[in-house]
Amino acid sequence: MKKLIFFLFLSISSIAQITRIEPPFWYSDMNHADVQIMFYGKNIAQNEVSATNLIIKNVQKTENPNYLFVTIDTKNVAPGTFVFTFKNGKKSFTQNYTLKARKKDSALRKGFDSSDMIYLIMSDRFANGNPNNDSSPNLIEKADRTNKDGRHGGDIEGMIQHLDYLQELGATAIWPTPLCEDNDEKGSYHTYGQSDVYKIDERFGTNEDYVRLSNELHKRNMKLIKDYVTNHWGYKHWMMDDLPTYDWIHQFPGYKQTTYRMTTQFDPNASALDAKICMDGWFVKSMPDLNQSNPLVLNYLIQNALWWIEYADLDGFRVDTYPYADKNAIATWTKAIMDEYPNFNIVGEAWLYSTAQIAYWQKDSKVAAIQSYNSHLPSVMDFMLQSILNEGVLHEDKSEWQKGIVRVYNSLASDFLYPDINNLLIFAENHDTQRLNQFYPEFEKYKLTMMLLATMRGIPQLYYGSEIGMAGDKNKGDGDIRRDFPGGWPGDSQNAFTQAGRTPEQQKYFEITSQLFQWRKAKKVIHTGKTTHYVPENNVYVYFRHNENESVMVLINNSNEKQTVSPERFAENLAKYAQGKDILTQKSFDIRKPIEIEPKSGFILELK
Amino acid sequence: MKKLIFFLFLSISSIAQITRIEPPFWYSDMNHADVQIMFYGKNIAQNEVSATNLIIKNVQKTENPNYLFVTIDTKNVAPGTFVFTFKNGKKSFTQNYTLKARKKDSALRKGFDSSDMIYLIMSDRFANGNPNNDSSPNLIEKADRTNKDGRHGGDIEGMIQHLDYLQELGATAIWPTPLCEDNDEKGSYHTYGQSDVYKIDERFGTNEDYVRLSNELHKRNMKLIKDYVTNHWGYKHWMMDDLPTYDWIHQFPGYKQTTYRMTTQFDPNASALDAKICMDGWFVKSMPDLNQSNPLVLNYLIQNALWWIEYADLDGFRVDTYPYADKNAIATWTKAIMDEYPNFNIVGEAWLYSTAQIAYWQKDSKVAAIQSYNSHLPSVMDFMLQSILNEGVLHEDKSEWQKGIVRVYNSLASDFLYPDINNLLIFAENHDTQRLNQFYPEFEKYKLTMMLLATMRGIPQLYYGSEIGMAGDKNKGDGDIRRDFPGGWPGDSQNAFTQAGRTPEQQKYFEITSQLFQWRKAKKVIHTGKTTHYVPENNVYVYFRHNENESVMVLINNSNEKQTVSPERFAENLAKYAQGKDILTQKSFDIRKPIEIEPKSGFILELK
Repeated sequence: MKKLIFFLFLSISSIAQITRIEPPFWYSDMNHADVQIMFYGKNIAQNEVSATNLIIKNVQKTENPNYLFVTIDTKNVAPGTFVFTFKNGKKSFTQNYTLKARKKDSALRKGFDSSDMIYLIMSDRFANGNPNNDSSPNLIEKADRTNKDGRHGGDIEGMIQHLDYLQELGATAIWPTPLCEDNDEKGSYHTYGQSDVYKIDERFGTNEDYVRLSNELHKRNMKLIKDYVTNHWGYKHWMMDDLPTYDWIHQFPGYKQTTYRMTTQFDPNASALDAKICMDGWFVKSMPDLNQSNPLVLNYLIQNALWWIEYADLDGFRVDTYPYADKNAIATWTKAIMDEYPNFNIVGEAWLYSTAQIAYWQKDSKVAAIQSYNSHLPSVMDFMLQSILNEGVLHEDKSEWQKGIVRVYNSLASDFLYPDINNLLIFAENHDTQRLNQFYPEFEKYKLTMMLLATMRGIPQLYYGSEIGMAGDKNKGDGDIRRDFPGGWPGDSQNAFTQAGRTPEQQKYFEITSQLFQWRKAKKVIHTGKTTHYVPENNVYVYFRHNENESVMVLINNSNEKQTVSPERFAENLAKYAQGKDILTQKSFDIRKPIEIEPKSGFILELK
Repeated sequence: MKKLIFFLFLSISSIAQITRIEPPFWYSDMNHADVQIMFYGKNIAQNEVSATNLIIKNVQKTENPNYLFVTIDTKNVAPGTFVFTFKNGKKSFTQNYTLKARKKDSALRKGFDSSDMIYLIMSDRFANGNPNNDSSPNLIEKADRTNKDGRHGGDIEGMIQHLDYLQELGATAIWPTPLCEDNDEKGSYHTYGQSDVYKIDERFGTNEDYVRLSNELHKRNMKLIKDYVTNHWGYKHWMMDDLPTYDWIHQFPGYKQTTYRMTTQFDPNASALDAKICMDGWFVKSMPDLNQSNPLVLNYLIQNALWWIEYADLDGFRVDTYPYADKNAIATWTKAIMDEYPNFNIVGEAWLYSTAQIAYWQKDSKVAAIQSYNSHLPSVMDFMLQSILNEGVLHEDKSEWQKGIVRVYNSLASDFLYPDINNLLIFAENHDTQRLNQFYPEFEKYKLTMMLLATMRGIPQLYYGSEIGMAGDKNKGDGDIRRDFPGGWPGDSQNAFTQAGRTPEQQKYFEITSQLFQWRKAKKVIHTGKTTHYVPENNVYVYFRHNENESVMVLINNSNEKQTVSPERFAENLAKYAQGKDILTQKSFDIRKPIEIEPKSGFILELK
């Protein structure tokens, strides 16, 4: 009897060893069939591991006995639950592991593309659909709406409740800032310092809520883009107290600040040390920098990414601080995802101010090929356009050699450097930049910005709130450009999600935005048509989007004077047409005659 | 007797028909062996042409009967004088044509390269060596030194007289602005509107003087670079009154202004019309735009270029407004020259403000290859660096994210886009930009500029007068940045060509310039060494030029405070060394210890 009790005790203690299994389950019939399961538990590495009906291809131990990386071969293995046995001498215990069935045609899922309009949501600040989860006993930072940098309670339920609103606006995809757990003591609301990358932060909801969000979007033919952070985790990530390997993160030892000098990643003159500090240095002190060059880390990140796509039926990734990750590893990561889902889409944040330097990071870049590099990243962000808008191009009334709307014209001059011009995210602002309303408080300039975003090549991205003219000043801190959407919280004095709730000014913003992007939804000529633009004259920019079937003429008068545009110059684009109908006013123009344009305004003419 | 007189009269009138033959002679044993000789004379095209001991491969007439283009095959034809017979019915006359012998190894001549320092001379404004040729009865504009935009009398003789000065300064090559005849009524001094491209302007000297200049340079191991204008001629060019073909120049009809929007030459979105107007439009109204797409024009320009190289024993071309010429034709022109002289060098003016857009125009550019283009142009100008210097980077005392000396650092970040980084002309100013002294009146900043130019990758180019701190403000007109060099004119109150004549301030400028570029002459490590640079800290830029044998450390403190630079960061470049000797002060430093640098100053340390 004593012996039995002793045995039971041992068993129980052994079973208790495994506290984490990542990925928590996997899918049958994945291209990524060799799954490296991480078992975490006290002294787990002292065990020998075996499995029933599963081939174990590799067992890898690290210097930390609490981790065991077990690679199984799931090729041609049908869905089901499998049993691992862990044995240490005479002690042993079992652990179930599940392979689930994939959704039909999962591999062929079509990611977001230039037919979409992406709405960027600061997840904590959009809508508080479930006030019960604003704080969690398991997580340190509690809700405090009086703190600009605190958690305000926005959540997944809030997004779900306002999908009709977004659909009405003309959005076809949403990009919420990261939703996985971030257990930082403060500033956790932005969630870029994740503490658990397999779990939705309880203050946003549950993993199941996230899947529900995805399903609700798909019901509306809308798409879900996950904000993926490959470069770093938060210092409260559960692994940080017990690293699998010393070099799981970049050690100097411990923290060293990145220089943010991303040019070191391709500058042939850069010192090796500078390149290393940029890439391996930490983004901020509270974000340990992941060492993607460690195959265990890289594989962990690949599997985590694939798992989320499959689990939450995702339509795309936005990847944070793309060029800060280990250069070759991030390409491997990206390629692994695209190999698994060839029609998926991933847009990387390469915040650089040179077309060549941005284009460098796009898949099959001829520029990067000079250095034998290929990121495999399908989509990059057009920070050239963003910077020009942000620098106030629409305030430049006078047309000079390098001033006025010609700067927008010039920003497209090197478009041939992009391997895939349609897979370029175009935007005026995001959660890290100055707010559109701050640099253009005037409605007319907001309208011109939206007209550009709705008609230029690429994938337009809007930042939540701009469509109601939401204010905010980055100079007052990031919190100020991430204010709560009015109406998102129970008891808000105003509800801008409904026409009745919006002020007349807000309604004006909403209407023009909605009108433009509803129109854009079906316009193949905007999604994939060729661009032909003309050197601006008198601060008026004229360009055409055209394909075999359709042609759209865009006229933007950026001057403070009424301008008259004569059609002769545009003969190569106008030859087949006689009339142009403005999509905003429905007014028709004889495009064989001069067109007058009011100051700071424009037309989008469908040609017939 | 009457009959005989009549016959003689006819003969004489026939002989008088040919008023121009271009090229006036050719060379045996040229790669370009099919020489297309242009015979010009009243109704010359009515004649049948034959030649003794020469194969005529082609006779081409145009719509203008005063021109006859006769292509002869000079392959394997020894030097000598050959006789052409022109016959019109019973009337005939003869015309001699000479093939000269080439200089030995002419084809293998080595053009200027990164071992050189190029001194740019505004030919009319440097030195008046021969006051007798300041005006010519044959040419319209007469000398007027009181007119900032008039002819001042500078000439080839003036250059020859000051070659010792230039050698003492450290120049190893000169680039005089164009010297061929420009018979414009006003503003002819800059000579970019040529009226005869086979003849040196009489106010600069004779063709023979030009050859003498070349010989005198070569005696000193110095090089001569001709400023070649392919894009346009002056409206007083002799052909303009009697065009060989209507489309010899670009006709709209007649004049139309270029937009100067060079981006249209590669912008995939550019309208065809805009691209055409940029390329075919006239640079200014007085400069008809040559149609290099016309094979007759192109061949004329190729032959003219080859003729000058061979005739004047040239070491290089600087090509004006390179991207304004017909894009494919200019590549053919360039290739023809480089095929004839594989070691020659040609630097093109592609005045653009994006590394990718500049690199586009360099031979074998991977960027241009995206559009299947290859200019074959060996060298381009680093307008990125020039613009940053011109925009006052050295006034930026504080180090901010995108301010201060980091802008120079950043300007090198995309160097990998250049197929040949050593064949990049680097400069702070030229005859078309603001003067260095205007944007940096302070000697310290002049010195820092020269330190950069003397140690960065590429071929440094100086603009005449800067080495004595010459002033001038482009805002007051181009004439003001093209002032007369003091001492260049008989009777000048001051002679800055001699140490005795220079003010102490001028001497300070001269000395530092001379010291730097004399030192640079033998420094292979600067000519072709690799660059390794470090992210500037505290507005201090540190970089190394290094090869297997040598290493030079450059430290530039652009801040207004004394800075201390610790060596640890630079270990990868310092490991082998213990000492650094400043080439300007000869002071030695223990480079294992921190180095103090005074405000707005720097060191160039040879490491040992």
